[in-house]
Amino acid sequence: MKWLVGFCLCLPVPSLVLAASPQDCRSCHATATPAALRQWQESAHSRAGVGCGDCHDGDHEEMKAGIATVPAAVCGRCHEKAYRQHVASRHGMGLHSGWGCTRNLPSRDLGECRFCHEEGSTRPRSTVQCARFLKQSAAMRDIGCNRCHRVEESCAGCHTGHLTELKIVRDPGVCAKCHMGPDHPQWEMWQTSQHGTLFTSMGEAVGPTCQRCHMPGGSHDVSRGITATPGGVPFPVLQREERRREMTTVCVECHAPAFAARELIRADTVREESTLLTKEADAIVWDLADLGELDPLPTERAPHPFAGSSLVTDGQMLYEDTSHIERLLFKMKKYDWAKAVKGSYHQNPAYAHWYGNAELKMDLVDIRAEASRLKNRGGGSSPAGRTQSAEEDLGKALEVLKNKFERKAISMEEYAREKKRLLREY
Amino acid sequence: MKWLVGFCLCLPVPSLVLAASPQDCRSCHATATPAALRQWQESAHSRAGVGCGDCHDGDHEEMKAGIATVPAAVCGRCHEKAYRQHVASRHGMGLHSGWGCTRNLPSRDLGECRFCHEEGSTRPRSTVQCARFLKQSAAMRDIGCNRCHRVEESCAGCHTGHLTELKIVRDPGVCAKCHMGPDHPQWEMWQTSQHGTLFTSMGEAVGPTCQRCHMPGGSHDVSRGITATPGGVPFPVLQREERRREMTTVCVECHAPAFAARELIRADTVREESTLLTKEADAIVWDLADLGELDPLPTERAPHPFAGSSLVTDGQMLYEDTSHIERLLFKMKKYDWAKAVKGSYHQNPAYAHWYGNAELKMDLVDIRAEASRLKNRGGGSSPAGRTQSAEEDLGKALEVLKNKFERKAISMEEYAREKKRLLREY
Amino acid sequence: MKWLVGFCLCLPVPSLVLAASPQDCRSCHATATPAALRQWQESAHSRAGVGCGDCHDGDHEEMKAGIATVPAAVCGRCHEKAYRQHVASRHGMGLHSGWGCTRNLPSRDLGECRFCHEEGSTRPRSTVQCARFLKQSAAMRDIGCNRCHRVEESCAGCHTGHLTELKIVRDPGVCAKCHMGPDHPQWEMWQTSQHGTLFTSMGEAVGPTCQRCHMPGGSHDVSRGITATPGGVPFPVLQREERRREMTTVCVECHAPAFAARELIRADTVREESTLLTKEADAIVWDLADLGELDPLPTERAPHPFAGSSLVTDGQMLYEDTSHIERLLFKMKKYDWAKAVKGSYHQNPAYAHWYGNAELKMDLVDIRAEASRLKNRGGGSSPAGRTQSAEEDLGKALEVLKNKFERKAISMEEYAREKKRLLREY
Repeated sequence: MKWLVGFCLCLPVPSLVLAASPQDCRSCHATATPAALRQWQESAHSRAGVGCGDCHDGDHEEMKAGIATVPAAVCGRCHEKAYRQHVASRHGMGLHSGWGCTRNLPSRDLGECRFCHEEGSTRPRSTVQCARFLKQSAAMRDIGCNRCHRVEESCAGCHTGHLTELKIVRDPGVCAKCHMGPDHPQWEMWQTSQHGTLFTSMGEAVGPTCQRCHMPGGSHDVSRGITATPGGVPFPVLQREERRREMTTVCVECHAPAFAARELIRADTVREESTLLTKEADAIVWDLADLGELDPLPTERAPHPFAGSSLVTDGQMLYEDTSHIERLLFKMKKYDWAKAVKGSYHQNPAYAHWYGNAELKMDLVDIRAEASRLKNRGGGSSPAGRTQSAEEDLGKALEVLKNKFERKAISMEEYAREKKRLLREY
Repeated sequence: MKWLVGFCLCLPVPSLVLAASPQDCRSCHATATPAALRQWQESAHSRAGVGCGDCHDGDHEEMKAGIATVPAAVCGRCHEKAYRQHVASRHGMGLHSGWGCTRNLPSRDLGECRFCHEEGSTRPRSTVQCARFLKQSAAMRDIGCNRCHRVEESCAGCHTGHLTELKIVRDPGVCAKCHMGPDHPQWEMWQTSQHGTLFTSMGEAVGPTCQRCHMPGGSHDVSRGITATPGGVPFPVLQREERRREMTTVCVECHAPAFAARELIRADTVREESTLLTKEADAIVWDLADLGELDPLPTERAPHPFAGSSLVTDGQMLYEDTSHIERLLFKMKKYDWAKAVKGSYHQNPAYAHWYGNAELKMDLVDIRAEASRLKNRGGGSSPAGRTQSAEEDLGKALEVLKNKFERKAISMEEYAREKKRLLREY
Repeated sequence: MKWLVGFCLCLPVPSLVLAASPQDCRSCHATATPAALRQWQESAHSRAGVGCGDCHDGDHEEMKAGIATVPAAVCGRCHEKAYRQHVASRHGMGLHSGWGCTRNLPSRDLGECRFCHEEGSTRPRSTVQCARFLKQSAAMRDIGCNRCHRVEESCAGCHTGHLTELKIVRDPGVCAKCHMGPDHPQWEMWQTSQHGTLFTSMGEAVGPTCQRCHMPGGSHDVSRGITATPGGVPFPVLQREERRREMTTVCVECHAPAFAARELIRADTVREESTLLTKEADAIVWDLADLGELDPLPTERAPHPFAGSSLVTDGQMLYEDTSHIERLLFKMKKYDWAKAVKGSYHQNPAYAHWYGNAELKMDLVDIRAEASRLKNRGGGSSPAGRTQSAEEDLGKALEVLKNKFERKAISMEEYAREKKRLLREY
């Protein structure tokens, strides 16, 4: 029996009292699921003597219902090192639906860790929810969200169910299934970058794949070298420097160190500049909210799963049941920003500039236009075109000021000073 | 002479009185069209003794003008089985411009079949028009519409003109030319799904292609296993069950039956849910039409090729010479819906969720915002900001009611009852 | 020593007094930049005895800072013919940032040539600016603009830095890096056309690549056969006919001459028709500008780098710091037009029709809707809803007329006649 499968050290399978032998299963499954049986027979698992029950330990009713899955921890019994790296990485530390969103907020309470993690562990212990996920139907949650966000708990998302060929997981295509689309088109930008096109013409030896840079030496810690959260918040300085060193170690396999450093620093700059653009748009939307000019107002629409009738523009922002201007802001923050920033790190000019930077700036044009329209509804500077008395004007100004204070955009002192000024001038 | 070309049974070529022998043609075409001659010389046709005139039967003037095509029926003389399957499939039964649109309307009169088909035949006998096609220039109709919609009459769209290598038509790329783009990106969603990426890394033996699932065993009936029309209307129950069985027969070559069944049922659900979203948007647009608030009104724009100055939001909807809100509805129905639904069937999370579901919901946000703006033009609840008398209000309400009745949104009884109520309250 | 590298004639390297020998460099660079050294060692340059200093002639401080580049002229010392063809082509004649924009304006002063070129040379001698480039940060200019627009001065953009494998530059992927994205998705439309899919299934011998048609026989003159400027302005008749002949020479390697001619003429027509659609939109925007109804007005926003507070809708149009309706016009002119036209030439129905033609027409719908909204702000036909006196109406009409005259939309005579009429009617 051979224990060395691929690059992962295979330890002896723990004895499973209930484990069925392949022979037990084969009698039925030759006709019930011939494909799975055939795939297993041709797999490294079969050659290493790992049978059906070693992974599926006895959940036969669930299997018949088509809902059985093999948890990553089961794979980890043999593939110890890979499992440990996976668990420690972004893939392993809570990408199930929505968790990725809350943890990246700069304002998060560090005590929140305990909500999800056992002390000293990076594995979540509870299911943290995502507002966008909660708005979906069961069917859309399954195919649209969890098909990718189950990566934490399932190795099959990349490795497939029964095939064990390493060619599959060494191909960038295996990453594409999740790392594509409007919110993070990493695969698309790699494919059309010089990195991707070198892979197409010259193969893996010359053209760097996703795996070569982000999983160097077969490591399952996919977060190595990443210097910011998915939300774009840079890690603390020390951590960032260490991670940058890890990344350049990979770059210098092909590039001069000074070149690699410069390219990454430039992308850092694009990240900062792109964030400023989203902040400008954010301020426009919040000003409208202070003025009560969003249409519909947060109070006039289906409540946000967590924030009720409060305005939400952070990682828990919705794309549905919202106003047109917030929908534009969502596109800027979730789509355009990602394309500009990730396009820069991945050396793709069209993504950095046209799909990213130009869209950020065009959406900002549209957000300004929509704000102008909303403020001038009815032909005057007041909502609904009513002519307002000086008293009404004061009331409105005080209300806007109060809104600003309540959402912490101004301090208590600023609030008091500005209020005084308004009353004096009136 | 060998008659077995590829997987198609080749029957003896019917004698063609006018058919030129390859020798006759070669003397000129070695210089006139050397490439075509070379391709034919290297083809299975040449090896099987099928010469120029066997396919081109004598349309020499048209050939010289570059407008000669070989009808599918000519290929069918030898490739009988493939031709029969093609004719019976969606490819063969009238995909020429626009025909695909009308036949899928739920309200269609079954008697309409006779307009296009000879009794008992699925082949159309007349050219049914498409409103969108009729709006295009001759050049755009050629390259933009008929380049794909000629599939019914031409085998060359997939098989190319003179090459006969089966590698060409077994590659999913051959399907991409038509099955791509904003209205039905099947190729893109396959390419980045696990199916597509398995094909990239492992080849045809492991990674399922378009052809493996939709043309199993080399069948030319591409509609096998499809349970709804392209417009999303499910087939009658019996037909649907039979077709689902056909599809799962293919799925179980690799998957457990319960798994395959569940995945397809989930996509059915996404289809139903996505249709509800388009219906919600549809109702908003029709309500605006009842109120006379579309801008421009159907009476103020170039007439619809079939419906004149009536509003059209079905399969004959236009994307041009319309209002902004109808343009948004077009995108929902034609682009977003297709991505959500086909993305779910093709197991692509990014298409199902981001390109599909999220766009459906964001466009619905924009449609609601535009409706709000149109209704509140002029600062009041009335169009153009005029202050209205109670009498004018009643007149408007009665007009809206009449519009609803005339477009069959309410019954005669509902119309009478509501009218009575309005008059009593006035 | 072999001088024949690839298809390019290599002349003896001019003696470089300062050139370091590979031995000098190797002692440090085996550890400093092992990848570059390894790539060179495996390259045709190494085999031909071309060492580090032969290309890098002594800019060691710049190299250490990661900013050294090898100018195309250095490559041209050996690769004479390729360099000459490159310099004469669109790639070589000024694609550095923005230059491509100004030269294509139909109204350009031919004397402008001297601003950029030495007499009798196609090589620019000064850096011509681009308004869009000038609006970007240094980081975005680097990664977003110059990564492609340095093609004039750098062979490495296509050939990579130290690799010399011809497989790299014969793969269409090498073109994708720049010729992709919303402004000119040539790679995408090729990839999914029959040309591209034949390449995927049958390889270079059957499936035509970018290079096969646009760089026939390895020519580095990438402009052969192109009949119009990137801005869509057809070349003078004689030049156009000569270029069309050059292109069909390539097409007829696979196609019948009459077929090739017809396909190219059809795309010419789509180009003309698409230009008419952008002109219609252009007129709507200029009319709004005459009326002073753009929001914000050009005077109310950051000045255009060249035109200050004048409206710009030509090749120097901005996508940022503009109005919503101008942003829509930018999309039509820069994205939609390119997809319709280039999609037609590249035989891709989805790009010609859906990504191109349909977007052109949908954006025109949105531009008309936005113009209607802007003109009717405030509920009346006048801006800001004010009721206007007859005197004010006259003043406005005279101002619009003056604006039209000043932007040369009407002649002096038309201006005088119309002005007279307005005053008489008042």
